Amino acid sequence: MGPGKADLLEGIRDTGSIAQAASRMGMSYMRAWGLVRTMNGCFREPLVVAERGGNTRGGARLTQSGEQVLGLYREMERQALASTQPNWERLRRFLAAP
Amino acid sequence: MGPGKADLLEGIRDTGSIAQAASRMGMSYMRAWGLVRTMNGCFREPLVVAERGGNTRGGARLTQSGEQVLGLYREMERQALASTQPNWERLRRFLAAP
Repeated sequence: MGPGKADLLEGIRDTGSIAQAASRMGMSYMRAWGLVRTMNGCFREPLVVAERGGNTRGGARLTQSGEQVLGLYREMERQALASTQPNWERLRRFLAAP
Repeated sequence: MGPGKADLLEGIRDTGSIAQAASRMGMSYMRAWGLVRTMNGCFREPLVVAERGGNTRGGARLTQSGEQVLGLYREMERQALASTQPNWERLRRFLAAP
């Protein structure tokens, strides 16, 4: 998982379609399909199911695992950001004016 | 800043030399020098000074700003890791056996 795959899962959840999720991210359908296949292969249960089956441009949705993995990942992003915020403020003071 | 630049700063601190720090990372001297120049340009004060000046293979060391920025960055890494640890354990349970 990383920010790109999380955005893709979110797009599939929101649009109900791999093609639309890809298009929203400016990503080719083939690339999105490849990422979905990779993710599905890395987890015990698939994160995304194609509702009309197979490599078609039909609907797709997140499984319960997909929802949970996406939720955990997004929470990790918030946790990392919050925990590093004070040091980030300190570090910013060392940066040159833009 | 990112993990590569932090490792480079750490290498310069440990070896007293951009060339040795680069070599330790399997990075070319020219690339390391470019990263140092970029970092020095991004911060109010340089993070690295070449002790014998200029683009030579002489000694180099971190400035006080360099030490502080490196310290803050490394602490941010530890903070991000610690804050996300419980969710990472949860997420791991969803992963397929390797």
